[in-house]
Amino acid sequence: MVIALLTDFGNKDWFVGTMKAVIMGINPNISIIDITHEITPQDVRQAGFVLWNAYKYFPEKTIFVCVVDPGVGSERKIIAVETPKYIFIAPDCGLLDFVLSEVKVLRAVYVENKNYFLEKISSTFHGRDIFSPVSAYISRGVDLSELGSEANLKIPEKIFVEVSNFENYEGEIIYIDRFGNLITNLKASEGIDGEIRIKDLIIEKISRTYSDVKSGQAVALVDSSGLIEIGVRNGNAKEVFRVKEGEKVFLKVRKI
Amino acid sequence: MVIALLTDFGNKDWFVGTMKAVIMGINPNISIIDITHEITPQDVRQAGFVLWNAYKYFPEKTIFVCVVDPGVGSERKIIAVETPKYIFIAPDCGLLDFVLSEVKVLRAVYVENKNYFLEKISSTFHGRDIFSPVSAYISRGVDLSELGSEANLKIPEKIFVEVSNFENYEGEIIYIDRFGNLITNLKASEGIDGEIRIKDLIIEKISRTYSDVKSGQAVALVDSSGLIEIGVRNGNAKEVFRVKEGEKVFLKVRKI
Amino acid sequence: MVIALLTDFGNKDWFVGTMKAVIMGINPNISIIDITHEITPQDVRQAGFVLWNAYKYFPEKTIFVCVVDPGVGSERKIIAVETPKYIFIAPDCGLLDFVLSEVKVLRAVYVENKNYFLEKISSTFHGRDIFSPVSAYISRGVDLSELGSEANLKIPEKIFVEVSNFENYEGEIIYIDRFGNLITNLKASEGIDGEIRIKDLIIEKISRTYSDVKSGQAVALVDSSGLIEIGVRNGNAKEVFRVKEGEKVFLKVRKI
Repeated sequence: MVIALLTDFGNKDWFVGTMKAVIMGINPNISIIDITHEITPQDVRQAGFVLWNAYKYFPEKTIFVCVVDPGVGSERKIIAVETPKYIFIAPDCGLLDFVLSEVKVLRAVYVENKNYFLEKISSTFHGRDIFSPVSAYISRGVDLSELGSEANLKIPEKIFVEVSNFENYEGEIIYIDRFGNLITNLKASEGIDGEIRIKDLIIEKISRTYSDVKSGQAVALVDSSGLIEIGVRNGNAKEVFRVKEGEKVFLKVRKI
Repeated sequence: MVIALLTDFGNKDWFVGTMKAVIMGINPNISIIDITHEITPQDVRQAGFVLWNAYKYFPEKTIFVCVVDPGVGSERKIIAVETPKYIFIAPDCGLLDFVLSEVKVLRAVYVENKNYFLEKISSTFHGRDIFSPVSAYISRGVDLSELGSEANLKIPEKIFVEVSNFENYEGEIIYIDRFGNLITNLKASEGIDGEIRIKDLIIEKISRTYSDVKSGQAVALVDSSGLIEIGVRNGNAKEVFRVKEGEKVFLKVRKI
Repeated sequence: MVIALLTDFGNKDWFVGTMKAVIMGINPNISIIDITHEITPQDVRQAGFVLWNAYKYFPEKTIFVCVVDPGVGSERKIIAVETPKYIFIAPDCGLLDFVLSEVKVLRAVYVENKNYFLEKISSTFHGRDIFSPVSAYISRGVDLSELGSEANLKIPEKIFVEVSNFENYEGEIIYIDRFGNLITNLKASEGIDGEIRIKDLIIEKISRTYSDVKSGQAVALVDSSGLIEIGVRNGNAKEVFRVKEGEKVFLKVRKI
């Protein structure tokens, strides 16, 4: 079985290694996969978006442990959510919204039962003291009903702008990846065509892949998660266009 | 069984992957956990501190392989130390001092027996050629007595400033984590209260957690390892206060 | 069995975690070792060099999955190459040249059979959709002959400058590691001596290890992969000498 970790703990300190130590002490047979630990500190929305891009490729029964937690030590609650294929554990701060907007929830509970925590709980490192042991016990068969009372889960509205008609759409950059590619919240199917505008730049068509344009040229395409993305072939769009997350993106649909 | 790795090799080159390759070639059933590989190059004290924060959360019988080694290729020796729960392998340069200041040593040997090294030993990459194979053979059951002669281990003085009376204490910043939190060498129990001074800043109380102050405010608390830490809620104390490791921190105890 | 990953995907996004998820979904019993994911984006030659430094330390039957792929989505092909000890999968863009210059090739095929791909193949993330599932199926026993037709493999010329006579050699910096050490393409045996010149700097002898010179001094030595390397003891040669990859290095051999 797999436990997947997603945090803003970085790879410089001992935080992630210590979480894995706790998990393997409770379930030595688990496989741990890091999604990433380089979420911008306390950026819950970014964490949710990264999780959304990754989760559906994991094996069934994977337990996702998501610790981006600006409210650690406060009264915020921790939730465990069961869906037909997975279990997600996260602070109750909206981190799971991207995922919950498209999966069916079977059960959701608050994580409250101290029998599944470390004996001594710090007020600043719940990743180690609560999230890790709870996930390890679940991987050993502990049922969600043993963790705590039923959670009052708000299922979010649709999060993406679904491109489905011959209309004009307004979206925005929601993530910029390592390569400097600008990922928008415009969700579209491959085969779509249209005109993209961002700041003063107009991209006249939606290509299939980077190689459809010349080196150094801007390109728009439907990315590997089904979102419209703006890149520069063999270059870094973030640096070329000097844009940040939140920048508006306009789409005029020509073909669907 | 677990082998835990702690190095200053970074994640950019092939160094860590190659160590893991050697280990898994000798013991394919081992689980490897990275504590971190981002120790500041050659910063032995930092490595020792990071190890100290992490080690006690690992499963029993974990073998810790610590390679921050300014003297690689010189006459410095490598030691293997057995404690009631763990085995530690490190260059004999003080890296283990933080741990040794609080655990009982059962045995300590110099790592000398070339039968447990790679056949060809470079003079610059003992992590690959000595530390990795030796740790893998230990995980397969090789006894420390087979590695070399008894080591002359210096058990260090107490390393932390133990806060236990109604006195004034002087400590210092010994580590700054990814979030910019300033960790001191002042060791205290939860429930302590007092006044903290660092540079011109006075923090009037010791809180329980970050959420006890407003966003953007400075906060002092006992961190998840039992050390007094100075942070800024939802901010980066390192950047706000412009301090470095070594900066003095003064504590006037009010309550214990 | 081991699958080794080498990419330019970085550790910030979800790319590497998603590849591992796909692999473990197909073969839950595999061990995955990261060589690195911090290859400079699209730097195929750097990836090849890093792979060359690492591969020979991996257990027999390791499958190397190398995804540095400037031509993703174009007509470039993916090759799978079998050697006496290993299998390598990479885009057909020269990434394997360093390795192929010194190993015997038993078989090489183009990776074409969609039965071993994910069902839906994006045009931008073949690491997830093709490389990962193909490697996992190979680890489960799928024979290379099932993947596609025989590949037309160009075996490269010798890549390193082999230092074997009392001559003058001209090489260059081909890689700079995390510590700032300058690694050249001059291949030599330990015991060699001579004079090294880089820019205006002359290093009068080739040492055995860093500790042979004083702290802060420049040192040349044969590194752990058999290449001549220029460093600064307890320092960072890249910063001290302000050189980049490609800088010429001259060697006058005195002893072999």
